[in-house]
Amino acid sequence: MTEAATARDTHVFDAALALTDHGAGRYTGHTHPAYANMVGPFGGTTAATLLRAVERHPERLGDPLSLTVNFAGPIADGPFDVAATVTRGNRSTQHWALTQTQGESVTTTATAVFGLPRPGWTSTELPLPDVPRPEDLSPAVMPVPWAQNYDLRYVTGALPDADSGERADSTSTLWVGHVPARPLDFTALAAMCDVFYPRIFLRRGAFVPAGTVSLTIYFHAPADVLAEHGDDAVLATARAAHFGNGYFDQTARLWGRGGELLATGHQLVYFKG
Amino acid sequence: MTEAATARDTHVFDAALALTDHGAGRYTGHTHPAYANMVGPFGGTTAATLLRAVERHPERLGDPLSLTVNFAGPIADGPFDVAATVTRGNRSTQHWALTQTQGESVTTTATAVFGLPRPGWTSTELPLPDVPRPEDLSPAVMPVPWAQNYDLRYVTGALPDADSGERADSTSTLWVGHVPARPLDFTALAAMCDVFYPRIFLRRGAFVPAGTVSLTIYFHAPADVLAEHGDDAVLATARAAHFGNGYFDQTARLWGRGGELLATGHQLVYFKG
Repeated sequence: MTEAATARDTHVFDAALALTDHGAGRYTGHTHPAYANMVGPFGGTTAATLLRAVERHPERLGDPLSLTVNFAGPIADGPFDVAATVTRGNRSTQHWALTQTQGESVTTTATAVFGLPRPGWTSTELPLPDVPRPEDLSPAVMPVPWAQNYDLRYVTGALPDADSGERADSTSTLWVGHVPARPLDFTALAAMCDVFYPRIFLRRGAFVPAGTVSLTIYFHAPADVLAEHGDDAVLATARAAHFGNGYFDQTARLWGRGGELLATGHQLVYFKG
Repeated sequence: MTEAATARDTHVFDAALALTDHGAGRYTGHTHPAYANMVGPFGGTTAATLLRAVERHPERLGDPLSLTVNFAGPIADGPFDVAATVTRGNRSTQHWALTQTQGESVTTTATAVFGLPRPGWTSTELPLPDVPRPEDLSPAVMPVPWAQNYDLRYVTGALPDADSGERADSTSTLWVGHVPARPLDFTALAAMCDVFYPRIFLRRGAFVPAGTVSLTIYFHAPADVLAEHGDDAVLATARAAHFGNGYFDQTARLWGRGGELLATGHQLVYFKG
């Protein structure tokens, strides 16, 4: 067992995802101060926690193929409940519905598709961009608690400052790794799909209230590719297509250093201004 | 009232989306032979039907912002039930959970976010591609029943034939309109996000079994922009990022002729081979 593999048992990310299993798809968890965002928890942790609930369910078949998380209401610091139900399954795929609640309030809903890998024709159409290696870039300083658990090395589109001004392109491209190191798995990959600060900050060169409304992730790499990836950095890029009526979308792509497309993520984000 | 506006009351698309309201968010509907696919109904009609169920609900607030539809199991030709529930709402947004069933079987699950438009900062980052006008292109022949209800004029990536061979790029770009003409609205736009035949056909130059597993749509245009669009054609483009383990993803973008980005769609698709 490598040092990185040992790290998973005690890593703060896994502490944030810790769930107590009450049987019949019912779990309790607790927000973790290390993954706090400006308001409430980092959405990536919420997505990963819901994925973890399915992974721990005794009826779970195979690995995640897709996950949609709807951030329905604020999550207060403190305990929460998760309910995970199989809505439909066959021998190769399984559909899940998930609800996260605090008291009587639904904070988050999600659906997930899991399935057995079916080896076959493979092609990655979108190649790893031509970017500097993470070793040749400096870690960014990000002034929110959750970002302290990541090593974020921007190729382009770092967090704007007072002098940034408006930009015509919302692209951010960066290398992402865990601090401390932790091997990549489906939950870590899900959280990394939400590692981008809101694209509106970059376009406007200013901070405005913003938060993800709905997040969808497609998992392209099977478990053996993730295991081989280990704790190496992930190249992550995100861009918006449209801003308007107080919402914008974002499309994200995450690759391994060898060019394997690990996941694609899409989200709709609320913003003021 | 224009001819096109009148058309909506009697259009075959609306006949396919017809629901009987049984109160408390419960509806019944019936698959429509005009929107049959190779197996079961056209997925775009299923997505539009679930959206219509929310639109008809007396508690519905505002217009669709996002929709995720999970195609959990086969839909048999015949009647079906739809249940729509508000999971969480506030003064400006509303989260919905939807289930389509046939007998005891869940065929489809969905989540949707609706909301009131909040006019503010607007920018489209992805412009309408430089393409010929629909008037200068010929309608394609597509050998499935549902496609007979659309005027499909390919700019690139038309359905392959026996001589096509493999291709390195999965992009299809086409103009889409209703046959007969019908004004664009949210349900029509949702269905158009699924108007692309499976990308694997284009890459391999061959037909293999394939079907959408999960579809997510972000609605960028508010109702007044759709109303202004009328029954004009929509420019639709789609491309896959990765094929592997029996699944591929697809990102779609739909614009109006004037360059307004109407919707973006994402899906995960099962394929054999």
